[in-house]
Amino acid sequence: MKKHELLFVFILLINPVFSQDLPKNEVVEKVRNYRKANEHALLKEYLALLSMPNIATDSLHIRKNAAFIMEMMKKRGIGKVQLLEAGVIADSEFAAPPAIYGEVNVPNAQRTIIFYAHYDGQPVNPLQWASGLEPFKPTFTDNSLDKGGKIIPQPKENEVINPEWRIYGRSTSDDKGGVFAILSAYEALVKSGLKPTANLKFFFEGEEEAGSPHLGKILDKHKNLLQSDLWIILDGPVHQSGQKQVVFGVRGDVNMSIKIFASKRPLHSGHYGNWAPNPAMQMARLLTSMKDENGKVLIDGFYDDVTPLTESEKQALAKIPFVDEEIRTDLGFAKPEGSGKSLVELINLPSLNINGMQSANVGAMAANVIPTTATAVLDLRLVKGNDYARQVEKVVNHIRKQGYYVTENEPTDEERAKYPLLARVTGKSGYNAQRTPMDLPIAQQVVRAVQSSSSEPIVLLPTSGGSLPLFLFEKYLNTPTITVGIPNHDNNQHAENENIKIRNLWNGIETVAAMMTMR
Amino acid sequence: MKKHELLFVFILLINPVFSQDLPKNEVVEKVRNYRKANEHALLKEYLALLSMPNIATDSLHIRKNAAFIMEMMKKRGIGKVQLLEAGVIADSEFAAPPAIYGEVNVPNAQRTIIFYAHYDGQPVNPLQWASGLEPFKPTFTDNSLDKGGKIIPQPKENEVINPEWRIYGRSTSDDKGGVFAILSAYEALVKSGLKPTANLKFFFEGEEEAGSPHLGKILDKHKNLLQSDLWIILDGPVHQSGQKQVVFGVRGDVNMSIKIFASKRPLHSGHYGNWAPNPAMQMARLLTSMKDENGKVLIDGFYDDVTPLTESEKQALAKIPFVDEEIRTDLGFAKPEGSGKSLVELINLPSLNINGMQSANVGAMAANVIPTTATAVLDLRLVKGNDYARQVEKVVNHIRKQGYYVTENEPTDEERAKYPLLARVTGKSGYNAQRTPMDLPIAQQVVRAVQSSSSEPIVLLPTSGGSLPLFLFEKYLNTPTITVGIPNHDNNQHAENENIKIRNLWNGIETVAAMMTMR
Repeated sequence: MKKHELLFVFILLINPVFSQDLPKNEVVEKVRNYRKANEHALLKEYLALLSMPNIATDSLHIRKNAAFIMEMMKKRGIGKVQLLEAGVIADSEFAAPPAIYGEVNVPNAQRTIIFYAHYDGQPVNPLQWASGLEPFKPTFTDNSLDKGGKIIPQPKENEVINPEWRIYGRSTSDDKGGVFAILSAYEALVKSGLKPTANLKFFFEGEEEAGSPHLGKILDKHKNLLQSDLWIILDGPVHQSGQKQVVFGVRGDVNMSIKIFASKRPLHSGHYGNWAPNPAMQMARLLTSMKDENGKVLIDGFYDDVTPLTESEKQALAKIPFVDEEIRTDLGFAKPEGSGKSLVELINLPSLNINGMQSANVGAMAANVIPTTATAVLDLRLVKGNDYARQVEKVVNHIRKQGYYVTENEPTDEERAKYPLLARVTGKSGYNAQRTPMDLPIAQQVVRAVQSSSSEPIVLLPTSGGSLPLFLFEKYLNTPTITVGIPNHDNNQHAENENIKIRNLWNGIETVAAMMTMR
Repeated sequence: MKKHELLFVFILLINPVFSQDLPKNEVVEKVRNYRKANEHALLKEYLALLSMPNIATDSLHIRKNAAFIMEMMKKRGIGKVQLLEAGVIADSEFAAPPAIYGEVNVPNAQRTIIFYAHYDGQPVNPLQWASGLEPFKPTFTDNSLDKGGKIIPQPKENEVINPEWRIYGRSTSDDKGGVFAILSAYEALVKSGLKPTANLKFFFEGEEEAGSPHLGKILDKHKNLLQSDLWIILDGPVHQSGQKQVVFGVRGDVNMSIKIFASKRPLHSGHYGNWAPNPAMQMARLLTSMKDENGKVLIDGFYDDVTPLTESEKQALAKIPFVDEEIRTDLGFAKPEGSGKSLVELINLPSLNINGMQSANVGAMAANVIPTTATAVLDLRLVKGNDYARQVEKVVNHIRKQGYYVTENEPTDEERAKYPLLARVTGKSGYNAQRTPMDLPIAQQVVRAVQSSSSEPIVLLPTSGGSLPLFLFEKYLNTPTITVGIPNHDNNQHAENENIKIRNLWNGIETVAAMMTMR
């Protein structure tokens, strides 16, 4: 291990030299020229893809997306284009969203690389999107709306496209941007007379944002088709500094929904307030018990089980540009959580976060009532060493320790009569973290390839803050994964007003082309 | 004072005797017979009234309700029927909801009594209503839905109407039920050849649920028209024991909305969670600081300023049937707040209640984000002695004491950069409590009249838990008020699935008729 670590440090130091040694810049340049000549055509197809609603549970539209992507692949000459089905979803009559597969064989290639992206997106609440935006009507702006950007018309055929413009819409970044970069890069290579240096496989998942409930089944079922030396995952953003980044691991993730039950009926707050229990206040108390005011989780054993970082990983962390102050200012808050720890340090710890909280109504629909229930959705991010079921159990034990009777169902009348504090805890499916060693030779090749596509030093991240079920690739295929992001970091991924900067789409094509031709 | 109190105790003791001494039962009986012969016609008109949306801010529909009620009044021969306008709402182009006025002069009557109800209702979120119900489509059920009741068809012309049935819909109880009882009682008296014993005036308000922002202006502007010896307020339920009740005061009320601001943009909970502050967690912590786990408010000085109860009031409280255990069981919770104090005791204290709380989304729309804001709506109920502005100030000071910068506006970038904890506090309009002395002679007459309409002992409540801006009647007209409720206590007033038991509608007619003929 010691030798590997030294080698790794060496590579980090000479990275800029590598990119000049290798003839990759020519590839990137040709690909760039092709893109420049075909920007309007590339965007036209992309906008059509973005216009299709793509929530994983929306079976009808998911299949329309899949059909469209299959056409994109066939048009580019990719072979064996097919849907990989997982079959019917348990307890339903619906088929699970299929993955889309295709491949390109390169004569004499010694390796096979699979490029992954997902074509489904997070659920949307159109009412929360900014005025003039609709999740599935991709819309151009001249800058980020948060920085005073304005909506502009879709550029005309003969108009110069400013790379600072953005496209707003669900999955512009997460992760149809990945689908776009992979298929556009392959197109640009072929049309520029260039050949990949490895056999390529393509795999587009259709339910990543739903927690990939059938990914394991698909990998297992199509094990032979999906043999490769490496999965390259196109998902997540570039570094907040704007530099390209290569990510070697992801955190695990598990969601929990906690619903507290009080009165069966909503009650007049004057006639019953401060006598009938208020579930919103109970929820406030419960959540408060989980973290201190610096954001440290107070649940027993929460930070146990964590596998320590290796030396190479620690050194990579130390090299990451410190952008915390810049992000903080940009996001508009005065003080981060974490007692002074940096963002990259905190990402290497398990976390507990409130995703949403609701009890009755606020705003124009607020009424003078005592609510009947209060609900909070939490996500727990996990690092290497954590087990998702064990992490959930720690939280459930904590809830019990606060005096709650915990059930997985609606409480019965008997339970209501017996327990002063009642919580229903549901939705405990999730997955564990995964980390590929940074010093694998194929990992180093990816690093060099991505570096060769950029004039700036790239960022190497041992673990991303985000989650993907990458442990599945290890489990079913015993193949390492490396993640490379495309979108701007301020892309509002997972929320309203998701967007991508056009420059990031263009850079993404070059990043992927460099990896498809890496040596 | 001492003499009055003794007299009052005496009256309470001999109440059942009064009702046999007085010839009121005949009136009640005649009114009952009229109702029995006309149930279908009475309900038909009531259902038409319930079908009209009546949110105070919905100017168009509010005026349709007003026109309909004016027709009801004219049809019954009530004189001088007119709208009392408050004029255009400040900062808007809309006229405020009008009050509806009418009067009946009785030759040789020595007194004038005004009957009050309001025809507007609380805002509705149709999605929260039970399946098969719509707020403005009045729907019959064979019992409370919470007790296994089922939706039944509207009774046909020749069908016997079971008084245990309920009608579900917004304002069935609060407070079109009051309008119905007043106008039906007057109709029944006239059609039965009976005469009121006082001049009657009718006053139906159109924005009580919006906090009566123009009631003072209307009372002041129409001071001469609205002279009387007593206002009888038809609003709020009968006692939880099912017994009729007379209420001598109301709590004051003031709402506050607290909105906490964190990041400007919603953030991916993996990439930024536990570094970027979470406004939902901040809100949980802030709310938790406001009350202890027994429901005692921890805000400095919160229970100060309270005017102690008089001896008569204490004695009335002691006579109220203890129904707490029964209500608790019915509502389905194991332990009330209040450290063992009874519901009627707690109602005589100021309170702080969470009406609603929201941050991002829960359920199917939940996403793995860090929300940008969290909002909670509070209502503070006030008792005699409290001043609403002073009570709000105590809460604001408490928020500041928790480290918050409090603003009334969206925070600026400078404020965001400077203050780690940012809260916007808005909506501080409200009003104070009011209490009419129980020993006024006219108050005693009302007590006797209501008792005469019931075979059960009635409940006398010094202060209701609910709120009405009754201080305005004292301020602008120097006239006492007494409140008499009609609906069942489990009416879901102010919430989804509002309903009224038909028996309560019938009893309400008799209660009002007794008061219109009281001696």
